[in-house]
Amino acid sequence: MSDHAPDPVRKDDPADAWSHELHRGVVGRGFKVGRVLYSGQSPFQSIELLDNEWLGRVLLLYGSVMLTEREEFCYHEMIAHPALFAHPAPRRVMIVGGGDGCTLREVLRHPCVTEAVQVEIDRQVCDVSRRFLSDLNRGALDDPRATLVFQDAMAYVAEPGPAFDVILSDTSDPVGPAEVLFQKGFHQRVFDRLAPDGVFVCQTESPFFHEAEIRDVYRSLREVFPVVRMYLAHLPMYPSGCWSFAFCSKGLDPVAALDPARVAAADLPLRYYTADVHRGAFALPAFARDLAGPRGEGA
Amino acid sequence: MSDHAPDPVRKDDPADAWSHELHRGVVGRGFKVGRVLYSGQSPFQSIELLDNEWLGRVLLLYGSVMLTEREEFCYHEMIAHPALFAHPAPRRVMIVGGGDGCTLREVLRHPCVTEAVQVEIDRQVCDVSRRFLSDLNRGALDDPRATLVFQDAMAYVAEPGPAFDVILSDTSDPVGPAEVLFQKGFHQRVFDRLAPDGVFVCQTESPFFHEAEIRDVYRSLREVFPVVRMYLAHLPMYPSGCWSFAFCSKGLDPVAALDPARVAAADLPLRYYTADVHRGAFALPAFARDLAGPRGEGA
Repeated sequence: MSDHAPDPVRKDDPADAWSHELHRGVVGRGFKVGRVLYSGQSPFQSIELLDNEWLGRVLLLYGSVMLTEREEFCYHEMIAHPALFAHPAPRRVMIVGGGDGCTLREVLRHPCVTEAVQVEIDRQVCDVSRRFLSDLNRGALDDPRATLVFQDAMAYVAEPGPAFDVILSDTSDPVGPAEVLFQKGFHQRVFDRLAPDGVFVCQTESPFFHEAEIRDVYRSLREVFPVVRMYLAHLPMYPSGCWSFAFCSKGLDPVAALDPARVAAADLPLRYYTADVHRGAFALPAFARDLAGPRGEGA
Repeated sequence: MSDHAPDPVRKDDPADAWSHELHRGVVGRGFKVGRVLYSGQSPFQSIELLDNEWLGRVLLLYGSVMLTEREEFCYHEMIAHPALFAHPAPRRVMIVGGGDGCTLREVLRHPCVTEAVQVEIDRQVCDVSRRFLSDLNRGALDDPRATLVFQDAMAYVAEPGPAFDVILSDTSDPVGPAEVLFQKGFHQRVFDRLAPDGVFVCQTESPFFHEAEIRDVYRSLREVFPVVRMYLAHLPMYPSGCWSFAFCSKGLDPVAALDPARVAAADLPLRYYTADVHRGAFALPAFARDLAGPRGEGA
């Protein structure tokens, strides 16, 4: 385990069951475990579905919180809608990872999307999510517009195929199977699979906890994409509560391309994303702008 | 202790010293304690100055983290500069609370400020901060433009006196001595002490953890101020990492009043606040906008 990722140290005390995560080895966050609904080991990682009185259901992979019922809307709306509303008419969408089905749920809210291909390496995450998170993903994994591919995303994007309008990289942290998905080889293949007006969005960790990784991933993205802009969202259960995403394109500007009237007309039942939030999320605190690099805020 | 505030349950295990805070009784955050630099009890609260390998120095009041050396710039820049840059020419500034001196440090960065009156109920917080946080507050507490008043802020604002251009309410949580500072009686007195183009900013807790308090405080503020707008900042060590502030005025709009050229010309050495951040911070996620109420985003 490299020291840049959340250190998934679990210290569950049976007398007072808590699930803990440590960051930088010295700052932690945890929650009291009500019930353990599922605990298993896939070929790739540990998978746990726990329950907390305030957070509701909680999905953990390799000991790290991936989502909680209470606040997953923040992450899933903010990984999906900036790309889907900036692109003029997204039809074919690819999701990298996203096994819980909640990013897919947000993608499928857009009637213009005719096909969503989800490439998830770990089938067991989808199985557990179908069983325990159906109130959250609302059957998205079985939607007729969705195609599930259980394959390494690196191999998938290396194959030729029809271009995508939007590719969303909803990966876990850059350790283990997901590490390669934060590197230039993957970014180049994503670029090649994107339509000319296509948009690639990937989660890029916390600017407070993961400075070195952010510098690395933005450097790689800038070598591949003409437009690379960081945006932020408030995600309370991720380390620091401040999470970054990279919006990448072959030319399309995420703020200039936004048509607030289209957001209003779509009238989606969202709890985080608005047209104002879209623009505001790209207004980076100075320290985060500096991390994202010279083109982190666009040319 | 009402259940709306962070529950400052301390579970320091001498064998592995951690400082913990619980929120909603079931979600926690903590950090490993390096050294205990100070631990005392004032007439109002416990005061502790701890040290953590990654966070640096940490000030706790009544068991809750007030600031950390690593990321205090986020809070202190964001409580001070939106008001100070929205107001056309702030000269007289009042700070409610703020005993650590870091809000005062940000206020004094503005050369137009001729007098900053800090009204802090607990002299011991200033004494401890002078002794242990001088690298952070940089002597602000002893600046010739600063006047320290050790008094209940409610009593102070009830007295007649010259008007203030900006009043910043840098209080602890709405329990104990600070509770009255979140209520209408205080808001009305602040209104009365503000100049016609004056701005009042107060910290208003986390929209994720403190929904009921936020509804209450914005209802009270709206009964007093014609303009009440919530804005958000990323504050990693406060509960949820997402913190809200209310910008209140007798008419001045926080976004329309901002002159980005003035921010650029001031050229302050800031790490969070920028003119873009100023505007972006008022773009509220839908759930937070709904919490702040019908005028939470302005008329």
